[in-house]
Amino acid sequence: MSTLRAINPATNEAFGAIFAEPDAAAIAAACAAAAAAFDGYRETSLEARATFLETIADEIEALGEPLIATLLAETGLPRGRLEGERGRTTGQLRLFAQVVRRGDWIGARIDPALPERKPLPRADLRQRFIPLGPVVVFGASNFPLAFSTAGGDTASALAAGCPVIVKGHPAHPQAGELVGGAIRAAVAKCGLPAGVFALLTGQSHELGGALVRDPRVKAVGFTGSRAGGMALVKIAAERPEPIPVYAEMSSINPVILFPGALAARAEALGTAFVGSLTMGAGQFCTNPGLVFALDGPDLDTFVASARQALTGAPPQVMLTPGIHQAYETGVAKLTGLDGVKPLGRGAGPGAANQGCAALFEVDAATFLATPALSHEVFGASSVVVRAPDLETLKTVLEGLEGQLTATLHLEAADAELARGLLPVLERKAGRILANGWPTGVEVSSAMVHGGPFPATSDGKSTSVGTRAIERFLRPVCYQDLPDTLLPPALQAANPLGVARAIDGVLGG
Amino acid sequence: MSTLRAINPATNEAFGAIFAEPDAAAIAAACAAAAAAFDGYRETSLEARATFLETIADEIEALGEPLIATLLAETGLPRGRLEGERGRTTGQLRLFAQVVRRGDWIGARIDPALPERKPLPRADLRQRFIPLGPVVVFGASNFPLAFSTAGGDTASALAAGCPVIVKGHPAHPQAGELVGGAIRAAVAKCGLPAGVFALLTGQSHELGGALVRDPRVKAVGFTGSRAGGMALVKIAAERPEPIPVYAEMSSINPVILFPGALAARAEALGTAFVGSLTMGAGQFCTNPGLVFALDGPDLDTFVASARQALTGAPPQVMLTPGIHQAYETGVAKLTGLDGVKPLGRGAGPGAANQGCAALFEVDAATFLATPALSHEVFGASSVVVRAPDLETLKTVLEGLEGQLTATLHLEAADAELARGLLPVLERKAGRILANGWPTGVEVSSAMVHGGPFPATSDGKSTSVGTRAIERFLRPVCYQDLPDTLLPPALQAANPLGVARAIDGVLGG
Repeated sequence: MSTLRAINPATNEAFGAIFAEPDAAAIAAACAAAAAAFDGYRETSLEARATFLETIADEIEALGEPLIATLLAETGLPRGRLEGERGRTTGQLRLFAQVVRRGDWIGARIDPALPERKPLPRADLRQRFIPLGPVVVFGASNFPLAFSTAGGDTASALAAGCPVIVKGHPAHPQAGELVGGAIRAAVAKCGLPAGVFALLTGQSHELGGALVRDPRVKAVGFTGSRAGGMALVKIAAERPEPIPVYAEMSSINPVILFPGALAARAEALGTAFVGSLTMGAGQFCTNPGLVFALDGPDLDTFVASARQALTGAPPQVMLTPGIHQAYETGVAKLTGLDGVKPLGRGAGPGAANQGCAALFEVDAATFLATPALSHEVFGASSVVVRAPDLETLKTVLEGLEGQLTATLHLEAADAELARGLLPVLERKAGRILANGWPTGVEVSSAMVHGGPFPATSDGKSTSVGTRAIERFLRPVCYQDLPDTLLPPALQAANPLGVARAIDGVLGG
Repeated sequence: MSTLRAINPATNEAFGAIFAEPDAAAIAAACAAAAAAFDGYRETSLEARATFLETIADEIEALGEPLIATLLAETGLPRGRLEGERGRTTGQLRLFAQVVRRGDWIGARIDPALPERKPLPRADLRQRFIPLGPVVVFGASNFPLAFSTAGGDTASALAAGCPVIVKGHPAHPQAGELVGGAIRAAVAKCGLPAGVFALLTGQSHELGGALVRDPRVKAVGFTGSRAGGMALVKIAAERPEPIPVYAEMSSINPVILFPGALAARAEALGTAFVGSLTMGAGQFCTNPGLVFALDGPDLDTFVASARQALTGAPPQVMLTPGIHQAYETGVAKLTGLDGVKPLGRGAGPGAANQGCAALFEVDAATFLATPALSHEVFGASSVVVRAPDLETLKTVLEGLEGQLTATLHLEAADAELARGLLPVLERKAGRILANGWPTGVEVSSAMVHGGPFPATSDGKSTSVGTRAIERFLRPVCYQDLPDTLLPPALQAANPLGVARAIDGVLGG
């Protein structure tokens, strides 16, 4: 039987507990328990479900220092980042608790009967959202807390009323198990059936494939590579009953420097850009991998400033030996492309698996002729594209694939230029930001962390923010059902006190 | 070049204009025009877009008797049904005009900046829905108005702000062209770019495939067969940029007769059931193709009453020779299955392409062992399944595929039995109705005409009712964008006056 152990990327040493790859019986048992728990869990009261999410957050906090210490060794990420990510993870769970309590996600709609209507009467029609069923969540390597075992997909699926089976990421198996234990403790404390949550940690494609193929599983959440995401999409589509896969996969997050902004602050922009590029060794889905600007002396100033900042950027341990190797391969590939000018690398490397940031420059014609320049290199790698004029810039942007983000740096004088590009960017990206950097994703009501393919496999959804709950819901209509058989949200007395649209008008 | 002509199904005679199959140039031109029109059309004012939808309704009404006369000859459907369907079609367009004006579909959300927040400030985040892009709509044969050229998919896509290219159904090419002309007239009257709408009538798989493959097309609406829908799903998934396909495909719409209801009114239920079964020659997606009940004398009474009603059910011309032939093949297949007892056929046939209703009976064990009994036979064919006890009935229902509807006939005394089955039915169907019949789909706010696979390819959506607009929208988040660059719905002054959620609270 295949086994795995954590590897400390800073030392390449395996350490800690040995994890046996879950076998077919374990997979089937988790799916059966999730299916058995579904009908009960999905009808827990709003208060009970919200309390469950808050209890998970409490239990994660109660793990204390051992969780952080384990993550320090498993991921190579610094303490400040990990503590911040823990806060984001528990905050996310508590935010979804608020969402559950508010009950807007139920989407209650009532069209009262019109018995006297001519030529035909109208029946009484009532609609609510119900959860899809058991959800399989694939933990991500780069956010071992916020996008992993108890991360955004798990929080939003549990909030929707779906049991969750996490395919634990092999890069942080012990931290995953700690967090999984916290969720199991919350399940027990809240008196929920054990099938509401399961964690199966492993590294084989067979494990993930078997989970996605299981007929009891009704949706999948994934954050990772394009190849990995598309493999799951294919498996899900080929099931006798196809199911949705929400895969967040690949984005290079174009940044556009408008002339006014470059004229006003090219040097500061160069420094700040490298700060965003190298944050967390560039291991963010929103890492700025492309910079577009009109050619000219202000852009030269930006490039010079970025090169200068790059020199001072320290090497950072990457998450896994495999990620580090893929990063170096990607950078080497860019370095060897015709027309691509390397602008330099960050300092180092000093030790095992350290990534040194890489910056390149091309002209727009080369960019248009070289599809490889649009492929994500996961890590701190970026390409500055010099465009001769606005028309060319627009053409280049039109040719981009879907993105999680698009960033504008602009001054008031750039507004008209920006206005001309916004329709293109809206069609390409899930989030458009001005005078900031795409790294750092707020967990809130208005956030969109999603975007057209290949940024995600479903550009109509978001994996961060409260709208993420909608991925795991579907509407059901009840026609002329006796009040006693209606779900509470739709009963005449509205015992849940949720917002309801009457004939299409909220609170009407 | 391939051509097509309408065939009168009552006479098998071809008549009227000859339609040439659109060639690659025509397809490309329609897609290019739609893509060119998109950015402008999607930012029309709410009032302009609503007026456009209302103008389409006016123009369809202005077609007057020639439209009805054409449909009478092309479809074999009776005048009353066609006039009713016209009212439904124009009513649907006017309902979506109201939805557009109200602006809730924009889903405006604002999370104000929190510059003083610790440890990190929060940016200003604003979210709205934008349309996906050009949509290809496949007209259906069985609703030549309400699910065809200007049907629900077209209305909801245009309401969302998507240009529409209709693949006109070859079973009603002249009526399709009349309605297409009405939409073009509305486009012109409203001063919109011509690319907002195109109609390409044809019968080849190449036409549909080319439209779904075109990179400028961003979503697909389809109502038709399971094979046809799945072929489009496959093409869409294999594109370099996969796109969503909303295919409404296959449903047999189980009806459950509870003991109390059978005891109270078995005879009346038998008569009413055959009325629903034979309405419109059974050519509805919501036709009741399965009836489940506990075995016993009351069920015998129901069956006897249904057989009696069937004898008096007149034959009806079906939509096309092909549909009639497939219906007869399907009925013959059921007739030949082991353990399946034919209960009788309706009267006739008297003339070409007339369908005679067919009713069968099986026991639950046979049903469980015979998957063919769960396949849709499009037309007036239904199977009564006798279950020995409630547990068996539950097992049978658990084994069903996804459905558009599930119907309960019950009395107060049946409430507990019904309560036990509701969780199963909610997982299986998009609409659950009591003491009525599934045929007849209201166009309103709370309607769900959708359901888990294979009822549709996306059980999270509906193709009827106002929520249908959501199929063609995706969220975009704007972070720290200057007010002048924000779309009006998100500007500080809220010039559109739309409902907005502040920090997650509507009107907060």
